[in-house]
Amino acid sequence: MLDSLFRPKSAAVIGASTKEFSIGNRVIRNLVDFGFKGPIYPINPKTDEVRGIKAYKSILDAPDNIDVVHMVIPAKFVPQAVEDCGKKDVKNIIINSGGFSEIGPEGEAFEKDFMARAKNYGIRVLGPNCQGIINTDPDVRAYCNFTFTKPEIGHISIVALSGGVAEVIHQGFSAMGVGTRIYASNGNACDITIPEIIQYLGDDDGTRVIVTYVEGLRDPSTFMKVAREVAAKKPILAMKAGRTAEGAKAAASHTGGLAKEDLATDLIFKKAGVLTFMDEGELIQAAAAFATQPIPKGNRIGLITNTGGPAVIATDILVGAELSIPPLSDKTEATLKESLFPEASVNNPVDVLATGNAAHYRACMDAMNADDNYDALYINLVTPFFVDTDSIAKEIAAVNQQAIKPMVCNLMTDKNQWTETVRILKEGGVPSFSLPGEAARAMTALVRYSAIRSRNIGQPDSFDDVDKSLAQGIIDKASAAGSKFLPSADVYRILEAYKIPTAGWRMAVSAEAAASAAEEIGFPVVVKADAAAIVHKSDMGGVAVNLPDSQSVQAAVKDMQARFEAPDLKFFVQKYVAGGMEVILGAKAEPGLGHLIMFGMGGIYVEVLKDVVFNLTPVTRFEAEEMLDTIRLAPLLKGVRGQKGVLRAGLVEVIQRLSQLVSDVPAIQELDLNPTLAFEDEIVVVDARIGL
Amino acid sequence: MLDSLFRPKSAAVIGASTKEFSIGNRVIRNLVDFGFKGPIYPINPKTDEVRGIKAYKSILDAPDNIDVVHMVIPAKFVPQAVEDCGKKDVKNIIINSGGFSEIGPEGEAFEKDFMARAKNYGIRVLGPNCQGIINTDPDVRAYCNFTFTKPEIGHISIVALSGGVAEVIHQGFSAMGVGTRIYASNGNACDITIPEIIQYLGDDDGTRVIVTYVEGLRDPSTFMKVAREVAAKKPILAMKAGRTAEGAKAAASHTGGLAKEDLATDLIFKKAGVLTFMDEGELIQAAAAFATQPIPKGNRIGLITNTGGPAVIATDILVGAELSIPPLSDKTEATLKESLFPEASVNNPVDVLATGNAAHYRACMDAMNADDNYDALYINLVTPFFVDTDSIAKEIAAVNQQAIKPMVCNLMTDKNQWTETVRILKEGGVPSFSLPGEAARAMTALVRYSAIRSRNIGQPDSFDDVDKSLAQGIIDKASAAGSKFLPSADVYRILEAYKIPTAGWRMAVSAEAAASAAEEIGFPVVVKADAAAIVHKSDMGGVAVNLPDSQSVQAAVKDMQARFEAPDLKFFVQKYVAGGMEVILGAKAEPGLGHLIMFGMGGIYVEVLKDVVFNLTPVTRFEAEEMLDTIRLAPLLKGVRGQKGVLRAGLVEVIQRLSQLVSDVPAIQELDLNPTLAFEDEIVVVDARIGL
Repeated sequence: MLDSLFRPKSAAVIGASTKEFSIGNRVIRNLVDFGFKGPIYPINPKTDEVRGIKAYKSILDAPDNIDVVHMVIPAKFVPQAVEDCGKKDVKNIIINSGGFSEIGPEGEAFEKDFMARAKNYGIRVLGPNCQGIINTDPDVRAYCNFTFTKPEIGHISIVALSGGVAEVIHQGFSAMGVGTRIYASNGNACDITIPEIIQYLGDDDGTRVIVTYVEGLRDPSTFMKVAREVAAKKPILAMKAGRTAEGAKAAASHTGGLAKEDLATDLIFKKAGVLTFMDEGELIQAAAAFATQPIPKGNRIGLITNTGGPAVIATDILVGAELSIPPLSDKTEATLKESLFPEASVNNPVDVLATGNAAHYRACMDAMNADDNYDALYINLVTPFFVDTDSIAKEIAAVNQQAIKPMVCNLMTDKNQWTETVRILKEGGVPSFSLPGEAARAMTALVRYSAIRSRNIGQPDSFDDVDKSLAQGIIDKASAAGSKFLPSADVYRILEAYKIPTAGWRMAVSAEAAASAAEEIGFPVVVKADAAAIVHKSDMGGVAVNLPDSQSVQAAVKDMQARFEAPDLKFFVQKYVAGGMEVILGAKAEPGLGHLIMFGMGGIYVEVLKDVVFNLTPVTRFEAEEMLDTIRLAPLLKGVRGQKGVLRAGLVEVIQRLSQLVSDVPAIQELDLNPTLAFEDEIVVVDARIGL
Repeated sequence: MLDSLFRPKSAAVIGASTKEFSIGNRVIRNLVDFGFKGPIYPINPKTDEVRGIKAYKSILDAPDNIDVVHMVIPAKFVPQAVEDCGKKDVKNIIINSGGFSEIGPEGEAFEKDFMARAKNYGIRVLGPNCQGIINTDPDVRAYCNFTFTKPEIGHISIVALSGGVAEVIHQGFSAMGVGTRIYASNGNACDITIPEIIQYLGDDDGTRVIVTYVEGLRDPSTFMKVAREVAAKKPILAMKAGRTAEGAKAAASHTGGLAKEDLATDLIFKKAGVLTFMDEGELIQAAAAFATQPIPKGNRIGLITNTGGPAVIATDILVGAELSIPPLSDKTEATLKESLFPEASVNNPVDVLATGNAAHYRACMDAMNADDNYDALYINLVTPFFVDTDSIAKEIAAVNQQAIKPMVCNLMTDKNQWTETVRILKEGGVPSFSLPGEAARAMTALVRYSAIRSRNIGQPDSFDDVDKSLAQGIIDKASAAGSKFLPSADVYRILEAYKIPTAGWRMAVSAEAAASAAEEIGFPVVVKADAAAIVHKSDMGGVAVNLPDSQSVQAAVKDMQARFEAPDLKFFVQKYVAGGMEVILGAKAEPGLGHLIMFGMGGIYVEVLKDVVFNLTPVTRFEAEEMLDTIRLAPLLKGVRGQKGVLRAGLVEVIQRLSQLVSDVPAIQELDLNPTLAFEDEIVVVDARIGL
């Protein structure tokens, strides 16, 4: 439990300084200014007081029972200071200082040293090279941080390694007048991790929504486990940066990590039920809505406005995000025609006109709240000087307090003049934005989250007709032999062991054997030369397709025998399957996470459209169906222009069996079923490859 | 010239009121508070003064030479008031009152009445049902408007029918501390139009950038002509709303226009060189950059930051928008390694670290300004309390004043505390944003505009080998006969007249004639039943494809003769062409604008991917090539996996000839060349349709 870190009853600062513009001074000033509820112990051997507070020569001289110690001293002094803290039974240390693993081997040695000591004493460490934490709980008021943006009390908690972006988000809330609950930035994160903090925030009743920013996950499987558990309790809103190769490189240069394009993080977010954002502004604005609003039951929005254009903009965004703007029911229309000005536009959006007053807004909100056709309310408000907008704001706030349906409000005004209207909405807990697009996107986020919450991916199917030990045996043997790729026959044996449907095949060592194998399989067939030395079969003339009879099979084999002199030369004879729709399936090991499973359209479309989707093992039936539905050419699978489409159930099953195979035999690094041909009534893998 | 409207020397208000919360009072208050340079004449028969200013009983009693008269009186009194203004030689009237064409026939009658009188006297009218204008020019200071957001002096002019959104944009600038030059919102726009105002702003030296919002264009061809002319002189930034069907419906409900999905507006913007935005926030932020920054020469951005994460976010956005982040040259790297802290990250983005000071920022800016690898600078600045950020801001402002390369700055701070840093950047003309994404998107807009400016679409090719009079004659005859669709033979004659390559064809009236026509064309052929009554040939069994010989042609014709009893029954015999890549071309009349020309992939891809692009006639060679390049499956045209691709020059020519055809013969309402088959060495239209 991180309670003593986030709810400290006392705080000390090793490296407390009398210099105004030093971190050792600022932390103390922040604690004092923010009204920290516990005692503060500046530690400095050279002074008696810091900012008027009694200072101690050493942590060993300070009073006992210290929950949090800040360290603002050079890296080389940190190990001994940690040792001292251990002797003093300190519970947590926030190391603000840098100069550790982020600068290289020398710093890394200091980090290892102090961590060994901290572990020895059971001290938890936040950082090093970090900002620290803030908790606005009125019983705590801990500003254990050297930044300067003083948050209001609120329900949003922020957690990130990157102090830069965490603080930008924090400032965003501050600029909007939205409160924060807990803020935590853990820098190098050598002890306390992001998942651990998220777990704590999940249990913190004051936290209604968790906001995080990542550039990559250090321990993806733990993150997924924790995020999944916490996201079931409260919304986690996340932004991932470093999406482009250049962005990943920039991220690597400041975190010292590896630059790589990172597909898995998005899949983890999705699987865990984390709501993701591509834009930090959108994330900030959405969080403001989540902090006070219930989750909508669906995607049907009622819009109320007192000016036309901004409602048009909002409508475009909502509809563009696949929300619905249902027309007014007869009853609602009749009610509003009676309540509003005769010139008002009684539609959805309903336009009460610039002259519309508080009673008009109230009538609209009440009517839409009572109307089962709407799940949430979007409100636009411009503030004509001739209208009593304070009263309108009071009605909006009053309806918001009823918490019947979620609502967002786009208040378009000069906020320096219309201060009372702003205040009423804010104190009424109404999420209030400055542009129609901002409010609409915040609403979109609420609805997206509602969809996430109602999305039940179910448990993965477990096929018990598979032969795991056969597959494992083949892989073990190949691994022991140091093979990089399995021979074709082994690949197909493994697929058969998992009942993944393939085109019929036989191995043959001679022209005659190949011909009789072909007879058994049925013509036409493909013949492929098979030998360790023949890697790129096609390019080397080692593949003969669409052979219609025994004669042509024998000819093909003899031709290959003449050209290839490999002593281990054999022939892979396979049913030649033509037609159908070319799709591609694949699996790739993702360290610490299982495997990525890929599905998409095959042939030139893979190349040109990159029409493929991914998921993480284990893939459930629901997820496999979602994969089929989310490729761009999805309608082709269902059939267009009166065509019947392909056997979707078969594809879904192959995806799941593939998922089970690589989960059962994780030593499989890469597996491609490319191409796989999908027909109306069957699915057939016609080429496959397994890499170790 | 609208000079007397936008630079009035005097202003009167008919309907001036002593009531504080009335428009007739507010306009006078705004003129006074904003420091209007001319005399103000309140007109009110019942009072001697309004807000301490002498009032006149009638406009006829007021002094002469009035440039602008506001009307804030009921609609029914407006015609007589306009008549009075005419007698008084008033130059312009701003009719703030509503109650005209926007409310129906009764109001429309008043509108017609006052417009007739205004025209009679040569008075120009802004509105009715409008906010009015603002001009911040220190020599003018005209706040002829009843809103309340007082702009600072600036270089951005705003023009829109919709006062709601214009004012939102205006407030956005105000909230950012960015100045405005001219503001104009013309409501019903019954006289002075948006293009006319844009023309004026184009000539106004104080306007550096024009911002507009539209929900549809009233007079698209005039808009295009004017916008094209003005956009050649200064940036026009535009947002179009009502993009979704529901948004268009919402727009129609508040403007009284027709709800329709409107493809042409985007094409007009593109053709005119207008920079378009999908988001009003992005538009506002971009305008702030355009107001002070030169246009970048290219897309290569140098990034400077003092914290990692926000630079990662910015990099993702810039690269995602196809901007480039070139690495440092050896020289720049060497310079910066000498100038910055040893721990600084000397890359692009360059991270001077949170402890980086003014000299470090200056060194980076100077080095990147001197380095030919960069076209523009993106700067991130967080404000650690231990750094003198005012000095950093001063260096940024100083470099900005040199105007060597465009720059944007993302200032991440608590703006209520770091007021001096904010002030220095603002007064230094540095476009300053609050989030990395905002600054990055503003930079993206500058680069997008640079690409627009360097895009030269050229003049349309004019093919002189066409037979316009033949095509026109066929169309005239069909129009005279009231035909909706041309018979196949006429369609193909027209295509041949414009040298659009089609599969060879003949008309035949008998089985024998069809067979000999097929002999001439060459087998295989298609035979289609042709009669006025046979509309859906395929569905009715009136098409026989891939007929290999005379015998099968005769059999097909006889079969159709037996089934169709039309007295005018003839047979369209055409070469059967197979293979090739199926593409689709088309044209559709767009009233007032010429025609939309469509190009895309054919077959099921049209249906599933909607992989088509449009342009407006006349389509130049450059534009036709761009059309080929911008479909999603564009690489297929060029050839993938070693395929040769199709004859692009042929497609480009067909697009241009099609453009010329519908421009020459505008009575063609619809023309489809679907499918057209594209081969390596030729293009062949195999089915075509022309609608009138």
